[in-house]
Amino acid sequence: MMQSETSLAPFFTPTGVVVVGASQDPNKLGFGLARNLLQSGYRGAVHFVNPRGGTLLEQPVWESVAAVPDPADLAVILIPAPAVPAALSACGERGIRAAIIASGGFRETGAEGAALEQECLAVAHWYGMRLVGPNCIGFLDTHLPIDTTFLPPPGPTPGAVAFISHSGAICAAVIDWARGQGFGLSRLLSMGNQADVTETDVLAPVAADPYTRVITLYLEGVSDGRRFIEEARRVIEEKPIVALKVGRFASGQAAVASHTGALAGRESAYTAAFRRAGVLRATTSEELFDWARALAWCPLPQGRRVAVLTNAGGPGVTAVDALETHGLTLAELQPETEATLRAALPPAASVHNPVDMLAGASPQEYATCLRALLDDPGVDSILVVVPPPPMHTTGAVARALIPLIYAAQKPVVAAVMGERLIQEAVEHFRAAHVPEYRFPERAASALAVLVQRAEWLSRPRSHPRQPVEVDFVAAGELLAGTSGLVAPALLSKLLAHYGIRVPAEGVATSAGEAAALAKRIGFPVALKLLSPDIAHKSDVGGVLLNVHNAEEAAAGYTTLLRRAQEAAPQAAIDGVLVQEMVGDGQDVIVGAVRDPQFGPLLMFGSGGVEVEALRDVAFALAPITFREAEELLAETWAGRRLRGYRHVPPADQDAVLDAIHRLSQLVCDHAGLQEIEINPLRVLERGQGAIALDIRAVRTPS
Amino acid sequence: MMQSETSLAPFFTPTGVVVVGASQDPNKLGFGLARNLLQSGYRGAVHFVNPRGGTLLEQPVWESVAAVPDPADLAVILIPAPAVPAALSACGERGIRAAIIASGGFRETGAEGAALEQECLAVAHWYGMRLVGPNCIGFLDTHLPIDTTFLPPPGPTPGAVAFISHSGAICAAVIDWARGQGFGLSRLLSMGNQADVTETDVLAPVAADPYTRVITLYLEGVSDGRRFIEEARRVIEEKPIVALKVGRFASGQAAVASHTGALAGRESAYTAAFRRAGVLRATTSEELFDWARALAWCPLPQGRRVAVLTNAGGPGVTAVDALETHGLTLAELQPETEATLRAALPPAASVHNPVDMLAGASPQEYATCLRALLDDPGVDSILVVVPPPPMHTTGAVARALIPLIYAAQKPVVAAVMGERLIQEAVEHFRAAHVPEYRFPERAASALAVLVQRAEWLSRPRSHPRQPVEVDFVAAGELLAGTSGLVAPALLSKLLAHYGIRVPAEGVATSAGEAAALAKRIGFPVALKLLSPDIAHKSDVGGVLLNVHNAEEAAAGYTTLLRRAQEAAPQAAIDGVLVQEMVGDGQDVIVGAVRDPQFGPLLMFGSGGVEVEALRDVAFALAPITFREAEELLAETWAGRRLRGYRHVPPADQDAVLDAIHRLSQLVCDHAGLQEIEINPLRVLERGQGAIALDIRAVRTPS
Repeated sequence: MMQSETSLAPFFTPTGVVVVGASQDPNKLGFGLARNLLQSGYRGAVHFVNPRGGTLLEQPVWESVAAVPDPADLAVILIPAPAVPAALSACGERGIRAAIIASGGFRETGAEGAALEQECLAVAHWYGMRLVGPNCIGFLDTHLPIDTTFLPPPGPTPGAVAFISHSGAICAAVIDWARGQGFGLSRLLSMGNQADVTETDVLAPVAADPYTRVITLYLEGVSDGRRFIEEARRVIEEKPIVALKVGRFASGQAAVASHTGALAGRESAYTAAFRRAGVLRATTSEELFDWARALAWCPLPQGRRVAVLTNAGGPGVTAVDALETHGLTLAELQPETEATLRAALPPAASVHNPVDMLAGASPQEYATCLRALLDDPGVDSILVVVPPPPMHTTGAVARALIPLIYAAQKPVVAAVMGERLIQEAVEHFRAAHVPEYRFPERAASALAVLVQRAEWLSRPRSHPRQPVEVDFVAAGELLAGTSGLVAPALLSKLLAHYGIRVPAEGVATSAGEAAALAKRIGFPVALKLLSPDIAHKSDVGGVLLNVHNAEEAAAGYTTLLRRAQEAAPQAAIDGVLVQEMVGDGQDVIVGAVRDPQFGPLLMFGSGGVEVEALRDVAFALAPITFREAEELLAETWAGRRLRGYRHVPPADQDAVLDAIHRLSQLVCDHAGLQEIEINPLRVLERGQGAIALDIRAVRTPS
Repeated sequence: MMQSETSLAPFFTPTGVVVVGASQDPNKLGFGLARNLLQSGYRGAVHFVNPRGGTLLEQPVWESVAAVPDPADLAVILIPAPAVPAALSACGERGIRAAIIASGGFRETGAEGAALEQECLAVAHWYGMRLVGPNCIGFLDTHLPIDTTFLPPPGPTPGAVAFISHSGAICAAVIDWARGQGFGLSRLLSMGNQADVTETDVLAPVAADPYTRVITLYLEGVSDGRRFIEEARRVIEEKPIVALKVGRFASGQAAVASHTGALAGRESAYTAAFRRAGVLRATTSEELFDWARALAWCPLPQGRRVAVLTNAGGPGVTAVDALETHGLTLAELQPETEATLRAALPPAASVHNPVDMLAGASPQEYATCLRALLDDPGVDSILVVVPPPPMHTTGAVARALIPLIYAAQKPVVAAVMGERLIQEAVEHFRAAHVPEYRFPERAASALAVLVQRAEWLSRPRSHPRQPVEVDFVAAGELLAGTSGLVAPALLSKLLAHYGIRVPAEGVATSAGEAAALAKRIGFPVALKLLSPDIAHKSDVGGVLLNVHNAEEAAAGYTTLLRRAQEAAPQAAIDGVLVQEMVGDGQDVIVGAVRDPQFGPLLMFGSGGVEVEALRDVAFALAPITFREAEELLAETWAGRRLRGYRHVPPADQDAVLDAIHRLSQLVCDHAGLQEIEINPLRVLERGQGAIALDIRAVRTPS
């Protein structure tokens, strides 16, 4: 950041706005901008600038920025790109320290535009000016109010959902969706090319708005991964953030040397980052706003137990399917609740959850039953499913329910099934800020996100483990001269310096040496080919296990060299590793790869050669916290199996967690380690530890 | 079925309808029914029956069914349940052979209602009468037209989508959704309790309607699994069927003795059945109709290559993500296409796929680009993404595109982003039968289902393999006396009778016998505990491998008996199996379980003890076809690995396919086999075959 956050204040609470490029031609965007700003109800000063002068919408048009009277602390620039740097200078001279460049024609159009964008940035630096854009739609706030966009009216209705977007085109759609779905926006901010101010910079200022209850993001990436996490984390303690991250399939994959690298990809890093920060990740545009409404309007539930209230079997079954799909559970109703329901409903009604009141259910019955469910301490949230009823109108049902929902401490969402017959109910619910959805599946998804938010807020704090018995200096010296694939002999020592156990071993460069080494280590031993040119040695038969005596060791040495010669005649051979044979156990993989955006990313899961095929892996950012390490184990079969499974005895889970924390520390300490992977990490029985049997690493000299 | 399908004709094309329970009270459903029938425009005779007589809606009300004049071939009954059997009798006497029982109060309310329902069925049988319902909404056809429902108006607009539903409550919602989403219905049929006519019975008659282009189903189950598949398969050759199967989480799981049984569940059987029949399975109510519109209105694509046409970067990226999520690919445009686009668009536009015309794109530019994409032979379908444009209206864009889409042989769907600003475009597209969606993700899902349908229709026919070298009689004799868990010794013989290879083996009941048997088979051998009470013998250490000589064999016998004694003192011990040790290979699981609805269901996947944890399995119905067997291999990692993976050599894939076909034959031939599972099936290198190392089966005596 160039300056402290106070430099961003003029974007959000300007005292006077200068529109550079205001136009009298109603077909120009510069006219739309001027009109929106005037019609928005903005209470500060509005100044129009255009070299032609004259008047516009009954306001004077100044011929230059210099001529603009006080107050003026924000410029909105909408003129052809080549003229923008000069306009920025004029603003700087005028004392304006914040500018939104709405014009396109910059970096997004190629090298020439990129140079222009750099020029703008240089001007801004000179004057200590902050920039939003270029190539953006600008900012609007429905409560201040202000509207610096050129979007066709009507603008959004005031509300509690803020929207920050990398795409300008999507902003118009979002305003329109919001109207169609019956919720208001608090603030909308289009970031454009982010020459200066980024999505991360504006998180806190947008969240500071008292009217904003939830922040939605449309992201094509983030500008600084670690800073994004920090900022988002802080904001999320107060207000939820929901993000739609697009471009999942767009990014090309760089060449990688490890399973971890191959499996990580960019999306694993985003998933890990969002999880660490507590950002709720929507998978579709629709979900983004389905969730936002629920988060803006509902109290949070105490748990996952949902009651379903409906007047027919089919919709009830559909709702139950959807709840279970989203990991929620059907609440078991208390006997008193069922008694209350039974007293209120006809005998054929079902008073178990899902509660089916039967088709004739009156608004009063809906209300009585909802009250009983709200009173049940075993119910955390309620999904009311209202098909177009054959007898009563859905509007009457909505009117009967709303006072109860309004007073409730538990979230209630409605699936009002249909479209036109149910408009009255929809309008009542929207006016009362009760989230309503056309389909039970979407209502269930909204309840699930409330649970996710509640669970995030109630989680105990977790931190990275402090390193113990780590020889940072020795490890650094070891790595100092290396580049590319690091020699396995070095890697064993490297892990040992970080307290990760490796087998006793030595390198033999002759058959005789192999036999002697094996004797010293003790039989049985394993023999492994050492070659910087052979990444996966088992592929060439480069591993011999259970070597029982000195003769076998000598013969094995010769065998491995012959196999290497056959499979890869060009490969350089460093010798043969003679290694302690480690007892049986469970094999897992622990790896790390450096993500260009988020830094070191850890992977844990099922090891062996089939890692990439099985994909039983999970990711977390380093430095990893206690909780995140435990989640890696909980999310993978490899991790769950450590507790024992059928005849597989429980393994040393603590040793695995320890190894994960130590590897995390290692990659954080040594920035040159691009990829490092232990595969397998052999996990022995409880109390016996875990041993890194094979290690692979790539180093990029810093 | 009681009779041939012609008995169902009066439900779909009645010449005269008798409403039993027509009511003069506008608050009664019997009034709504009478009103709907009259207002529907039905051209046959309409007769109202009510013991009170009088007139209703200017029509005479007959005091009894007997009094009704000709013609009358369909009765719609809406009177209290206890009076229904007598009314049915009266209809039977009157010569009416088809009745819709709309009344509730039958099986769905308990034992008393179930008895009433049986009584209705008995009356129907007596008169050779067919019944729809009870507890249903009835039938409507917008083209005939006719409406025998009591739903509040307005009814659906005429269209090409038929809807068949197990839930009555959902019907009103569907009619309303259809109106809201701008598509019409051809027929709607609510099945109710299905005392007689079922969802399967009506598939062909509903499909026979020339106005129906796609059939949608809301299923809570099917009444006869195999018949459903047969009927659906036939219909699907002509018209697509999309089904939403609910109750996924409702069914309790019966106790099972095998991994196959534990993993199968009800939904695996439905998935296998829908796949065999070609039924498109929607996962949400919204998807059901998103897909139906596309299937009703679009030509089918030739392949998976999609072009995206839009006027902004963000929506383009979102669309690409969604396409890839649904397994579609981005078309690579031909140089000529890109040249045409370049000539038509400003220089900063992107003429690669996704094509970004920039924000200012005019309706004419949209049209020119769409035409170029339609002409590109490398493009199979097109997704047009229209955000609310800053300059032109979306309505003008729609008008420019529609003539091209109308004339095209390729499917074009539109994502018109927004809600109110884009209403004009939406209305144009709907009127022209161009599927439009508010979100790009949903449009992509609709394109994907068109591809699925096209691929289904172009698949070559596939049949079950004919059995060879199968001794059906000997296998039957072997199984004759068995019940519960079948003894492993029998199972080896059973598989051998069906040409599935098993290891050489014998049963020892003393240490000496074990040693002698082992000598005869040849070393090394494996020893396995035999006990009907121990389902998973490796859990108790009941397997010894690599027994090298007679002494070890004798000692091993003693060890196994001791372990059994320790782990399960009550278990009966049949002895120890002495078995040929089979060479290395890939281990897979092949199993079968009898689904109560669909009959024998096969499972294939990753074997070993972790089957249930890894869940790398796929299912197909027996008798399995060639193609289905190949799909089992293609869908699982266990199957794909058979082709070889890194240092794992290719295995005998043909032997696996052969074993699957033979197991399929076995379970089809012997109805008493409730579950049977080979785990592992050891697959040797190519040409070396596959051997069933462990077999487990449960038999229910027939």
